[in-house]
Amino acid sequence: MGDAVVNVAVLGLGRMGYRHAEILASRVPGARLVGVMDALPARTAEVAVRFGVKSYADWRDAVSDPAVDAIVIVTPSTTHAEIAIAAAKAGKAIFCEKPLALTVAECEAIDATVNETGVLFQLGFMRRFDPGYAAAKRAIAEGAIGEVVAYSGISRDPQAPPREYVAQSGGIYLDALIHEFDIARYLMADEVSRIQATGRALVHKWFADFGDVDHAYVTLEFAKGGLGHIEGSRNALYGYDIRAEVMGTRGTIAIGYDRQTPIRIQTAAGIAHDFVPGFLERFEAAYFIEMVEFIKCVLEDRRPIVGAWDGRQALLMALAAKRSQELGRPVDVESVAREG
Amino acid sequence: MGDAVVNVAVLGLGRMGYRHAEILASRVPGARLVGVMDALPARTAEVAVRFGVKSYADWRDAVSDPAVDAIVIVTPSTTHAEIAIAAAKAGKAIFCEKPLALTVAECEAIDATVNETGVLFQLGFMRRFDPGYAAAKRAIAEGAIGEVVAYSGISRDPQAPPREYVAQSGGIYLDALIHEFDIARYLMADEVSRIQATGRALVHKWFADFGDVDHAYVTLEFAKGGLGHIEGSRNALYGYDIRAEVMGTRGTIAIGYDRQTPIRIQTAAGIAHDFVPGFLERFEAAYFIEMVEFIKCVLEDRRPIVGAWDGRQALLMALAAKRSQELGRPVDVESVAREG
Amino acid sequence: MGDAVVNVAVLGLGRMGYRHAEILASRVPGARLVGVMDALPARTAEVAVRFGVKSYADWRDAVSDPAVDAIVIVTPSTTHAEIAIAAAKAGKAIFCEKPLALTVAECEAIDATVNETGVLFQLGFMRRFDPGYAAAKRAIAEGAIGEVVAYSGISRDPQAPPREYVAQSGGIYLDALIHEFDIARYLMADEVSRIQATGRALVHKWFADFGDVDHAYVTLEFAKGGLGHIEGSRNALYGYDIRAEVMGTRGTIAIGYDRQTPIRIQTAAGIAHDFVPGFLERFEAAYFIEMVEFIKCVLEDRRPIVGAWDGRQALLMALAAKRSQELGRPVDVESVAREG
Amino acid sequence: MGDAVVNVAVLGLGRMGYRHAEILASRVPGARLVGVMDALPARTAEVAVRFGVKSYADWRDAVSDPAVDAIVIVTPSTTHAEIAIAAAKAGKAIFCEKPLALTVAECEAIDATVNETGVLFQLGFMRRFDPGYAAAKRAIAEGAIGEVVAYSGISRDPQAPPREYVAQSGGIYLDALIHEFDIARYLMADEVSRIQATGRALVHKWFADFGDVDHAYVTLEFAKGGLGHIEGSRNALYGYDIRAEVMGTRGTIAIGYDRQTPIRIQTAAGIAHDFVPGFLERFEAAYFIEMVEFIKCVLEDRRPIVGAWDGRQALLMALAAKRSQELGRPVDVESVAREG
Repeated sequence: MGDAVVNVAVLGLGRMGYRHAEILASRVPGARLVGVMDALPARTAEVAVRFGVKSYADWRDAVSDPAVDAIVIVTPSTTHAEIAIAAAKAGKAIFCEKPLALTVAECEAIDATVNETGVLFQLGFMRRFDPGYAAAKRAIAEGAIGEVVAYSGISRDPQAPPREYVAQSGGIYLDALIHEFDIARYLMADEVSRIQATGRALVHKWFADFGDVDHAYVTLEFAKGGLGHIEGSRNALYGYDIRAEVMGTRGTIAIGYDRQTPIRIQTAAGIAHDFVPGFLERFEAAYFIEMVEFIKCVLEDRRPIVGAWDGRQALLMALAAKRSQELGRPVDVESVAREG
Repeated sequence: MGDAVVNVAVLGLGRMGYRHAEILASRVPGARLVGVMDALPARTAEVAVRFGVKSYADWRDAVSDPAVDAIVIVTPSTTHAEIAIAAAKAGKAIFCEKPLALTVAECEAIDATVNETGVLFQLGFMRRFDPGYAAAKRAIAEGAIGEVVAYSGISRDPQAPPREYVAQSGGIYLDALIHEFDIARYLMADEVSRIQATGRALVHKWFADFGDVDHAYVTLEFAKGGLGHIEGSRNALYGYDIRAEVMGTRGTIAIGYDRQTPIRIQTAAGIAHDFVPGFLERFEAAYFIEMVEFIKCVLEDRRPIVGAWDGRQALLMALAAKRSQELGRPVDVESVAREG
Repeated sequence: MGDAVVNVAVLGLGRMGYRHAEILASRVPGARLVGVMDALPARTAEVAVRFGVKSYADWRDAVSDPAVDAIVIVTPSTTHAEIAIAAAKAGKAIFCEKPLALTVAECEAIDATVNETGVLFQLGFMRRFDPGYAAAKRAIAEGAIGEVVAYSGISRDPQAPPREYVAQSGGIYLDALIHEFDIARYLMADEVSRIQATGRALVHKWFADFGDVDHAYVTLEFAKGGLGHIEGSRNALYGYDIRAEVMGTRGTIAIGYDRQTPIRIQTAAGIAHDFVPGFLERFEAAYFIEMVEFIKCVLEDRRPIVGAWDGRQALLMALAAKRSQELGRPVDVESVAREG
Repeated sequence: MGDAVVNVAVLGLGRMGYRHAEILASRVPGARLVGVMDALPARTAEVAVRFGVKSYADWRDAVSDPAVDAIVIVTPSTTHAEIAIAAAKAGKAIFCEKPLALTVAECEAIDATVNETGVLFQLGFMRRFDPGYAAAKRAIAEGAIGEVVAYSGISRDPQAPPREYVAQSGGIYLDALIHEFDIARYLMADEVSRIQATGRALVHKWFADFGDVDHAYVTLEFAKGGLGHIEGSRNALYGYDIRAEVMGTRGTIAIGYDRQTPIRIQTAAGIAHDFVPGFLERFEAAYFIEMVEFIKCVLEDRRPIVGAWDGRQALLMALAAKRSQELGRPVDVESVAREG
């Protein structure tokens, strides 16, 4: 890895993959983008030219390229397991976008391979790197609120995704709330044993056509005795609204309520300000910091704060929430793993 | 009722009853406090002297006093039904503190008598008169957020009540969250058909000795298709924290986050401000306005915006929530009425 | 003063005088409104009947009435000195609305008589009793921000007063900013030695017809070395905006930014909330507390926290500010007293 | 300038110069850092190696290098005029850090040369590129608050600079408030005709040893009739606090009150949050955007929104403020230019 540079290949060049490539190419200390690959050859060529790097015709070429130290996987979720396992066996450091995979079995297979091969593996739960959530985690660790006892999180999108996206997204629990499931575990430093979820298509009735909902409430019971609550919604027309609160025995920490600009317009009609419009704006720093951290972990041979097992746990919670909504009653989280 | 004055007797002179008496004696246009009664004769005498009004030895004396136009009932909840029914039969206007009663049967008996006798009856759900909630109700009525689809409310106390109180309070759902159940119905303008509740004794483990919890999450399913969520907690050491948010098809309305004073102290240690310490401070205006409204309704022969049936509905929701927590599954609200 | 009751007469029954009478008649412990007087006999009669108290044909009748313990003066400012001096000589406790008088000589005459006769005298600078300013004063006294070094205050009205009011108001410095001058001295616990003021008619050009301005900036130099700044404006269409900040050697205290209701409406158009519309709403508590405090001071024979000398000092600052604007240069405050 | 790439040399590699070099080397579309120069040869060498670019022994080498399209001047303010004039004559596009120069004559010489040579010149008033100020400018342009009539700005540093810095900084008006002077002109779209300034060494008494102050108030009179007020302070121990408010005939726009993280810690001790610690954090986006804009202007042959004349105007205001403080009276701004 000579000269403390990590040579990285990015696989998958959609909106998120392109962003990772751009960040790696220009701003991450110690990173050198060396190659890219997309399922669309034209896209691969275009991006390779823009950054002046190799274009791979197939992900296997990147994985087998001895010039590559690390692989960033931003391909469709269904392909994560195959690529990640191959990359691990090839000894590459791996950054994989969330969700880790769409089945518990695949998650466990990735985790097992990572453990066997000992490669470095970081999962793209970027909220853990957001300055807000990270400061909350730190404050909790420093005892600012005593022992944590309850988590509550709100994740609201400013609009519904298009029909074709909803059709294949896996539903609100797997697609949107998986971030909440991960951060709840992270801030509470505990596992969730039981979940109850209730959702409905409140505003966009057509979500029901796909067995999906646009608004959901989830109640969490933690193994050590804590409680949690999550709201997920596609109906926050005013902006992208991500909030959380952790209650401890001595106080609470609240995260959120972000403005796009720090201005306030005051007229006879009232006082008004704007709001962060979307996740790219809200988590701009987080997407950058997670990549900086990934490269640092590779260079310093450190274990990332979020790995394959975390992907398995969040998926399990999402599946349990989905099951609970279908059954209309609470569901034990691990039962989902055993059943399928 | 000559000269547009309403002669009022207050029954029950604990903290809340005394406050009602004081407000009626000094600040409510058109009201004249004429008599008081408490189960403790010494308390009755002391308060009667302070306000220069009659002391009744028994609530029956007040109810049968022809000089009395209106009765304010602030006695223990178990006595509400007997007193309210007698007062209604005596043709008195009635203001009754919440909860209306502790059984659905008693609630229904009060409601039936009020309807038969045609007396004016107002229930002490003072949140409906809070300038914040009232402004939200108005904004919703004016279409500010389109059609309402979801309610979420947080009610947090800054400390746990004493053991003896918890022992007989009926638990967090009946004692504390009954306000949430009422205001959720009110702002959503709908009934709740199904409830799921999860609670635990997170900080004050001794709540479990009384079958009670100090922290609870409740999910509501509304009849017309809306959803709701309520958090109740005894563990907000930083202050009395009452918040709510109503989501509509075109936006949301958020109520809450109140400071005691509008000051902010900024030092190298950070930026700090205070918080409203308790319900008397938070709802000071509401307690005054509800009494003003009661007297106005009597004088103008108008129906109050909150009556006996509202007490029945909120109680039903509280009982359903309690049942749900015990059973570990969602409960149909009306099933509780049928079962008892 | 038998039985710990203070018998009060209110002189002047305009908006503010009526409010004082109403508060004294209904809500102030230990106060008994016994009589009222207004320059308009019909107004006197109407208010006397409403509260069931005596009507005085002339303020001298109230001052000489042996049944009166305390006089509340809310007559035009030009009459304050004559009435206050007579009331002091008659041994009455005095509450006098601001401004104390319109000349320094009158202020000094009132102060001298109050000192000679030893009567209790409280001036109507109600901001000192506002929970926000009072909490700031307390925090400063407790050392929360170290030694105070700078004051900055903003006083904005939501609209201009009518022409006839501006014609006789004495101008923005005497009419509106006198509250700022008092509270600056109070929070800084110091006198102002030099003032520089700059004002213009920015929005309502017709203010210039009366030698007045609708927007002004004032710089204060305090005797012990501190600095101060005040903005006064008639142009805050969004609401009544009163803010202040005190800087100390270890931090600052900020007062202000008040909402009428704690609600926030969030739509695609942005996030909006309301604002306090006027001074009666903003200082509702202060107007009540100052009167409670006045009666308590009488009953407990305590000296009020704001007296006649404070009225003289604030007037002097207002006159100095006016002079500075006219001269276009800084003015020594005491020089105004010497010159007239 | 083939292939739409701008080849840039950075002169001066202190904290700010290094940051500009880094941003240009890694993140600005269309920019290529080609060389660097610092007065310290070792620093030049170190930075040149880090970015893999040329090291110049003297600024003249960069200015005469035909491979260089644009010069970024971050050398000491006393050298700006000589370098900028030479660069303009060499036909280079110029980005120059603020302040433009320390004398009005030098500012005017730069401006004249830029106009004669027709080179592109951008001054480093990065606040104009801050998303907050930029949004305010836009909202004003869209008529959100009607016609602008008053500006008020607060610029507070969290601590005093070291003695050696104060000794040569030129004082609070030239060093710190020059940003305020520029942004006041920009948002009001007007020139300032008269200034009155009052300052004192309130907390750091040693500022007086250098004829400087740590706290100042400045009143501005605008040519078209508006007013302005600026507070500058070195004493905001709680953080770096930059706020502004523009008042118009139909409302106001407020900019500011920024938190470092969106978290709030709520304990029995109160509600607390943090604050932005310094200018690099507060204006991180602005420093990046101004450089992006500079390169875009070069590529698109557009005139930057802030040029040499703006530097002259802001300097004049700073000098007038300093003079006003010394004289203890208001000063006409242009009189300073005429006097020298």
